[in-house]
Amino acid sequence: AQMALERDYEVQREYDTRYRVLLEATSEAFVLISVGAGRVVDVNPAASALIGLPREDLMGQVLAQEFEGRRQGEFLQELAASARDDTVRPLDLHLRRSELRVLVTPKAFRAAGDQLILCRVEPAIAAVGVSDDLT
Amino acid sequence: AQMALERDYEVQREYDTRYRVLLEATSEAFVLISVGAGRVVDVNPAASALIGLPREDLMGQVLAQEFEGRRQGEFLQELAASARDDTVRPLDLHLRRSELRVLVTPKAFRAAGDQLILCRVEPAIAAVGVSDDLT
Repeated sequence: AQMALERDYEVQREYDTRYRVLLEATSEAFVLISVGAGRVVDVNPAASALIGLPREDLMGQVLAQEFEGRRQGEFLQELAASARDDTVRPLDLHLRRSELRVLVTPKAFRAAGDQLILCRVEPAIAAVGVSDDLT
Repeated sequence: AQMALERDYEVQREYDTRYRVLLEATSEAFVLISVGAGRVVDVNPAASALIGLPREDLMGQVLAQEFEGRRQGEFLQELAASARDDTVRPLDLHLRRSELRVLVTPKAFRAAGDQLILCRVEPAIAAVGVSDDLT
Protein backbone atom coordinates (compact mmCIF):
# COMPACT_ATOMS: atom_id res chain seq x y z
CA ALA A 1 0.00 0.00 0.00
CA GLN A 2 2.90 2.33 0.84
CA MET A 3 4.48 1.76 -2.57
CA ALA A 4 1.21 2.31 -4.42
CA LEU A 5 0.73 5.54 -2.49
CA GLU A 6 4.23 6.70 -3.41
CA ARG A 7 3.59 5.91 -7.05
CA ASP A 8 0.32 7.89 -6.97
CA TYR A 9 2.16 10.67 -5.22
CA GLU A 10 4.67 10.88 -8.09
CA VAL A 11 1.83 11.12 -10.62
CA GLN A 12 0.17 13.86 -8.59
CA ARG A 13 3.44 15.79 -8.25
CA GLU A 14 3.43 15.93 -12.02
CA TYR A 15 0.02 17.66 -12.04
CA ASP A 16 1.29 20.25 -9.60
CA THR A 17 4.00 21.19 -12.14
CA ARG A 18 1.62 20.98 -15.13
CA TYR A 19 -0.77 23.36 -13.35
CA ARG A 20 2.02 25.89 -12.63
CA VAL A 21 3.40 25.83 -16.17
CA LEU A 22 -0.07 26.19 -17.74
CA LEU A 23 -1.02 29.06 -15.43
CA GLU A 24 2.14 30.94 -16.45
CA ALA A 25 1.89 30.04 -20.14
CA THR A 26 -1.64 31.26 -20.77
CA SER A 27 -1.84 34.91 -21.78
CA GLU A 28 -5.38 35.07 -20.37
CA ALA A 29 -5.78 36.45 -16.86
CA PHE A 30 -6.84 33.95 -14.17
CA VAL A 31 -7.52 34.37 -10.45
CA LEU A 32 -8.33 31.40 -8.20
CA ILE A 33 -10.46 32.11 -5.13
CA SER A 34 -11.24 29.95 -2.11
CA VAL A 35 -14.96 30.41 -1.34
CA GLY A 36 -14.62 29.35 2.32
CA ALA A 37 -11.87 31.81 3.16
CA GLY A 38 -13.06 34.30 0.50
CA ARG A 39 -9.43 34.91 -0.44
CA VAL A 40 -7.20 34.78 -3.53
CA VAL A 41 -5.28 31.47 -3.47
CA ASP A 42 -3.56 31.90 -6.84
CA VAL A 43 -3.14 34.49 -9.60
CA ASN A 44 -1.15 34.45 -12.85
CA PRO A 45 1.10 37.16 -14.36
CA ALA A 46 -1.59 38.25 -16.86
CA ALA A 47 -4.13 38.80 -14.04
CA SER A 48 -1.60 40.59 -11.89
CA ALA A 49 -0.83 42.99 -14.77
CA LEU A 50 -4.53 43.60 -15.50
CA ILE A 51 -5.44 44.26 -11.86
CA GLY A 52 -2.34 46.40 -11.36
CA LEU A 53 -0.91 44.69 -8.26
CA PRO A 54 2.06 42.31 -7.94
CA ARG A 55 1.26 38.67 -7.25
CA GLU A 56 2.56 38.79 -3.67
CA ASP A 57 0.17 41.64 -2.84
CA LEU A 58 -2.82 39.80 -4.34
CA MET A 59 -2.21 36.41 -2.70
CA GLY A 60 -4.45 35.98 0.34
CA GLN A 61 -6.36 39.19 -0.43
CA VAL A 62 -10.12 39.71 -0.74
CA LEU A 63 -10.65 40.00 -4.52
CA ALA A 64 -13.88 42.02 -4.17
CA GLN A 65 -11.93 45.08 -2.99
CA GLU A 66 -10.23 45.28 -6.40
CA PHE A 67 -13.58 45.98 -8.09
CA GLU A 68 -15.61 49.19 -7.89
CA GLY A 69 -18.65 49.04 -5.62
CA ARG A 70 -18.38 45.35 -4.78
CA ARG A 71 -18.49 44.00 -1.25
CA GLN A 72 -17.10 40.59 -0.41
CA GLY A 73 -20.38 38.80 0.44
CA GLU A 74 -22.39 39.90 -2.58
CA PHE A 75 -19.37 39.48 -4.83
CA LEU A 76 -18.90 35.81 -3.88
CA GLN A 77 -22.65 35.24 -4.28
CA GLU A 78 -22.61 36.84 -7.75
CA LEU A 79 -19.63 34.70 -8.76
CA ALA A 80 -21.26 31.51 -7.45
CA ALA A 81 -24.57 32.34 -9.19
CA SER A 82 -22.81 33.08 -12.48
CA ALA A 83 -20.73 29.88 -12.19
CA ARG A 84 -23.94 27.83 -11.64
CA ASP A 85 -25.58 29.39 -14.66
CA ASP A 86 -25.28 27.14 -17.70
CA THR A 87 -25.35 30.06 -20.10
CA VAL A 88 -22.09 31.30 -18.48
CA ARG A 89 -22.88 34.98 -18.50
CA PRO A 90 -19.72 36.84 -17.48
CA LEU A 91 -19.89 39.51 -14.76
CA ASP A 92 -19.32 43.03 -16.05
CA LEU A 93 -17.07 44.83 -13.54
CA HIS A 94 -14.70 47.76 -13.16
CA LEU A 95 -11.20 47.30 -11.79
CA ARG A 96 -10.43 49.90 -9.16
CA ARG A 97 -6.68 50.44 -9.77
CA SER A 98 -6.35 50.11 -13.54
CA GLU A 99 -9.84 51.64 -14.10
CA LEU A 100 -10.47 49.00 -16.77
CA ARG A 101 -13.85 47.52 -17.53
CA VAL A 102 -13.51 43.72 -17.45
CA LEU A 103 -15.63 40.64 -18.00
CA VAL A 104 -15.21 37.97 -15.30
CA THR A 105 -16.14 34.37 -16.18
CA PRO A 106 -16.18 32.18 -13.06
CA LYS A 107 -15.95 28.39 -12.91
CA ALA A 108 -16.76 26.72 -9.57
CA PHE A 109 -15.27 23.38 -8.55
CA ARG A 110 -14.27 21.35 -5.51
CA ALA A 111 -10.72 20.15 -4.84
CA ALA A 112 -9.46 18.38 -1.71
CA GLY A 113 -12.59 19.46 0.21
CA ASP A 114 -12.28 23.16 -0.71
CA GLN A 115 -14.84 25.04 -2.77
CA LEU A 116 -12.85 27.02 -5.32
CA ILE A 117 -13.79 29.48 -8.07
CA LEU A 118 -11.50 30.01 -11.05
CA CYS A 119 -12.12 33.45 -12.60
CA ARG A 120 -11.08 34.31 -16.13
CA VAL A 121 -10.73 38.10 -16.39
CA GLU A 122 -10.85 39.74 -19.85
CA PRO A 123 -10.60 43.43 -20.73
CA ALA A 124 -14.07 44.40 -22.00
CA ILE A 125 -12.56 46.36 -24.92
CA ALA A 126 -11.38 43.12 -26.50
CA ALA A 127 -14.94 41.81 -26.28
CA VAL A 128 -16.46 44.82 -28.10
CA GLY A 129 -15.47 43.47 -31.50
CA VAL A 130 -17.24 40.22 -30.74
CA SER A 131 -20.60 41.78 -29.94
CA ASP A 132 -21.46 45.13 -31.53
CA ASP A 133 -24.62 45.77 -29.50
CA LEU A 134 -22.54 46.84 -26.49
CA THR A 135 -22.43 50.45 -27.72
CA ALA B 1 5.52 9.02 7.50
CA GLN B 2 2.47 7.27 6.10
CA MET B 3 0.18 10.04 7.40
CA ALA B 4 2.41 12.81 6.08
CA LEU B 5 2.42 11.10 2.70
CA GLU B 6 -1.37 10.87 2.74
CA ARG B 7 -1.64 14.54 3.61
CA ASP B 8 0.71 15.48 0.77
CA TYR B 9 -1.30 13.23 -1.49
CA GLU B 10 -4.49 15.19 -0.67
CA VAL B 11 -2.73 18.46 -1.55
CA GLN B 12 -1.47 17.01 -4.83
CA ARG B 13 -4.94 15.65 -5.68
CA GLU B 14 -6.05 19.27 -5.54
CA TYR B 15 -3.52 20.28 -8.21
CA ASP B 16 -4.74 17.52 -10.47
CA THR B 17 -8.23 19.12 -10.36
CA ARG B 18 -6.89 22.67 -10.65
CA TYR B 19 -4.93 21.67 -13.76
CA ARG B 20 -8.01 20.07 -15.39
CA VAL B 21 -10.29 23.04 -14.67
CA LEU B 22 -7.72 25.56 -15.94
CA LEU B 23 -7.05 23.60 -19.11
CA GLU B 24 -10.80 23.56 -19.88
CA ALA B 25 -11.38 27.18 -18.82
CA THR B 26 -8.75 28.83 -20.99
CA SER B 27 -9.98 29.78 -24.45
CA GLU B 28 -6.41 29.52 -25.76
CA ALA B 29 -5.42 26.26 -27.46
CA PHE B 30 -2.90 24.08 -25.58
CA VAL B 31 -1.31 20.74 -26.47
CA LEU B 32 0.99 18.90 -24.04
CA ILE B 33 3.63 16.62 -25.59
CA SER B 34 5.90 14.03 -24.00
CA VAL B 35 9.35 14.41 -25.60
CA GLY B 36 10.47 10.87 -24.76
CA ALA B 37 7.46 9.18 -26.33
CA GLY B 38 6.97 12.01 -28.85
CA ARG B 39 3.23 11.79 -28.29
CA VAL B 40 0.34 14.05 -27.27
CA VAL B 41 -0.37 13.47 -23.57
CA ASP B 42 -3.06 16.14 -23.21
CA VAL B 43 -5.05 18.57 -25.33
CA ASN B 44 -7.79 21.06 -24.47
CA PRO B 45 -11.09 21.75 -26.26
CA ALA B 46 -9.75 24.94 -27.92
CA ALA B 47 -6.78 23.02 -29.41
CA SER B 48 -9.00 20.17 -30.51
CA ALA B 49 -11.27 22.63 -32.35
CA LEU B 50 -8.33 24.44 -33.98
CA ILE B 51 -6.63 21.24 -35.15
CA GLY B 52 -9.94 19.76 -36.29
CA LEU B 53 -9.79 16.41 -34.47
CA PRO B 54 -11.66 15.24 -31.36
CA ARG B 55 -9.60 14.91 -28.16
CA GLU B 56 -9.74 11.10 -28.16
CA ASP B 57 -8.23 10.99 -31.66
CA LEU B 58 -5.41 13.36 -30.69
CA MET B 59 -4.43 11.68 -27.41
CA GLY B 60 -1.35 9.47 -27.90
CA GLN B 61 -0.82 10.72 -31.46
CA VAL B 62 2.31 12.18 -33.05
CA LEU B 63 1.56 15.93 -33.19
CA ALA B 64 3.99 16.57 -36.11
CA GLN B 65 1.64 14.78 -38.51
CA GLU B 66 -0.99 17.49 -37.94
CA PHE B 67 1.32 20.10 -39.48
CA GLU B 68 2.23 20.48 -43.15
CA GLY B 69 5.72 19.28 -44.06
CA ARG B 70 6.83 18.45 -40.56
CA ARG B 71 8.40 15.15 -39.56
CA GLN B 72 8.46 13.99 -35.97
CA GLY B 73 12.22 14.23 -35.30
CA GLU B 74 12.81 17.70 -36.72
CA PHE B 75 9.52 18.93 -35.26
CA LEU B 76 10.50 17.94 -31.70
CA GLN B 77 13.96 19.49 -32.25
CA GLU B 78 12.41 22.74 -33.49
CA LEU B 79 10.06 22.82 -30.50
CA ALA B 80 12.88 22.15 -28.04
CA ALA B 81 15.12 24.81 -29.68
CA SER B 82 12.30 27.38 -29.63
CA ALA B 83 11.49 26.52 -25.99
CA ARG B 84 15.18 27.03 -25.02
CA ASP B 85 15.28 30.39 -26.76
CA ASP B 86 14.77 33.23 -24.28
CA THR B 87 13.25 35.48 -26.91
CA VAL B 88 10.40 32.95 -27.26
CA ARG B 89 9.98 33.13 -31.01
CA PRO B 90 6.87 31.13 -31.91
CA LEU B 91 7.01 28.53 -34.69
CA ASP B 92 5.04 29.52 -37.78
CA LEU B 93 3.20 26.40 -39.00
CA HIS B 94 0.28 25.24 -41.11
CA LEU B 95 -2.34 22.87 -39.74
CA ARG B 96 -3.06 20.08 -42.17
CA ARG B 97 -6.77 19.50 -41.53
CA SER B 98 -8.10 22.99 -40.83
CA GLU B 99 -5.58 24.58 -43.29
CA LEU B 100 -4.99 27.36 -40.77
CA ARG B 101 -1.68 29.15 -40.32
CA VAL B 102 -0.81 29.05 -36.62
CA LEU B 103 1.89 30.28 -34.26
CA VAL B 104 3.10 27.65 -31.80
CA THR B 105 4.79 28.83 -28.59
CA PRO B 106 6.42 25.92 -26.75
CA LYS B 107 7.41 25.79 -23.09
CA ALA B 108 9.64 22.90 -21.99
CA PHE B 109 9.61 21.53 -18.44
CA ARG B 110 10.24 18.38 -16.43
CA ALA B 111 7.59 16.67 -14.29
CA ALA B 112 7.94 13.35 -12.49
CA GLY B 113 11.01 12.46 -14.59
CA ASP B 114 9.33 13.16 -17.95
CA GLN B 115 10.45 15.87 -20.33
CA LEU B 116 7.28 17.64 -21.44
CA ILE B 117 6.56 20.49 -23.85
CA LEU B 118 3.45 22.61 -23.45
CA CYS B 119 2.49 24.20 -26.79
CA ARG B 120 0.23 27.23 -27.04
CA VAL B 121 -1.31 27.30 -30.51
CA GLU B 122 -2.74 30.59 -31.86
CA PRO B 123 -4.34 31.30 -35.22
CA ALA B 124 -1.85 33.56 -37.04
CA ILE B 125 -4.62 35.90 -38.24
CA ALA B 126 -5.24 37.07 -34.66
CA ALA B 127 -1.51 37.73 -34.22
CA VAL B 128 -1.18 39.94 -37.33
CA GLY B 129 -2.61 42.97 -35.54
CA VAL B 130 -0.02 42.61 -32.77
CA SER B 131 3.04 42.83 -35.02
CA ASP B 132 2.77 44.59 -38.37
CA ASP B 133 6.21 43.58 -39.62
CA LEU B 134 4.97 40.07 -40.39
CA THR B 135 3.88 41.15 -43.86
